[in-house]
Amino acid sequence: MQKKSMDELERLNSEAFKHIKKTPLVLLLDNVRSALNVGSAFRTADAFALHAIALCGISAQPPHREILKTALGADQTVDWIYFADTIAAVQHYREHGYQICAVEQAEGSISLQNFVWGEKSICIIFGNEVDGVSDEVMKISDACIEIPQFGTKHSLNISVSMGIVIWELFRKLKL
Amino acid sequence: MQKKSMDELERLNSEAFKHIKKTPLVLLLDNVRSALNVGSAFRTADAFALHAIALCGISAQPPHREILKTALGADQTVDWIYFADTIAAVQHYREHGYQICAVEQAEGSISLQNFVWGEKSICIIFGNEVDGVSDEVMKISDACIEIPQFGTKHSLNISVSMGIVIWELFRKLKL
Repeated sequence: MQKKSMDELERLNSEAFKHIKKTPLVLLLDNVRSALNVGSAFRTADAFALHAIALCGISAQPPHREILKTALGADQTVDWIYFADTIAAVQHYREHGYQICAVEQAEGSISLQNFVWGEKSICIIFGNEVDGVSDEVMKISDACIEIPQFGTKHSLNISVSMGIVIWELFRKLKL
Repeated sequence: MQKKSMDELERLNSEAFKHIKKTPLVLLLDNVRSALNVGSAFRTADAFALHAIALCGISAQPPHREILKTALGADQTVDWIYFADTIAAVQHYREHGYQICAVEQAEGSISLQNFVWGEKSICIIFGNEVDGVSDEVMKISDACIEIPQFGTKHSLNISVSMGIVIWELFRKLKL
């Protein structure tokens, strides 16, 4: 099999990307410590044409050297907004009609494969690498999505988790 | 919603993990440059109880400081094997009855969401961060899986790609 050239991939340019209909999904990062993980969020959000990224609390913001390393320029294409306070960010998206879904391992969580899109756009929240989504944010979320896991480790890497959840939600909606 | 404690997650210990029936999937890394990406492969392989990881060519092998950083100990739980030559690795798995699937953007690739498991176990191949799966390996693969992408960038981060493909194949088989 012959690999496709960059031209054959027919990727959008930045200008065209601005104008396409976006996936009705906002990726909210609640105090993510590593700017490399923030960069990875941008690269994944670009691939699935997410509506925007909301960077909250200590999550790094572009322009940033470490974000650049993993975003490879996607911080220039994906819309983003910064909120110092994650709770204010959640309230903002709720008021704009979004369903608020934390990604966590919690009592009453929905396994990712069973999640069903409703009528609303979705704001999915990923938390800090060590502490996860904060308890205060968990309390005001509408639902919690959990990636089922079958090994020995507590959790997946946050960039990998973002990839899996965004892929699955995108696939359910569009593919 | 209340986050689960480590105990409530009911993860397996290393000894129990050895004895569970594994997912019939081998993750083959064809000259992956970054040991951090190799470590991430271990962590994801642990979460979905993959049969093994095949590390080929320049891909780093445990014990390795950078692998540890991202594997968080999963290099102690997931079986792995090293092949200097990726072609020899592919031939090994073919002789043992595996379907050989490269993950690439290629002519005639199958979009990930459309991939269907056959009767065989699968050996999925991820390539170098810059060059992808080598042309020689593409030539002898049975199939090619592509993650459809809708943004401006050429590709996803390899750790994210591994997470998405492994999740989707696992879900199709088991969930």
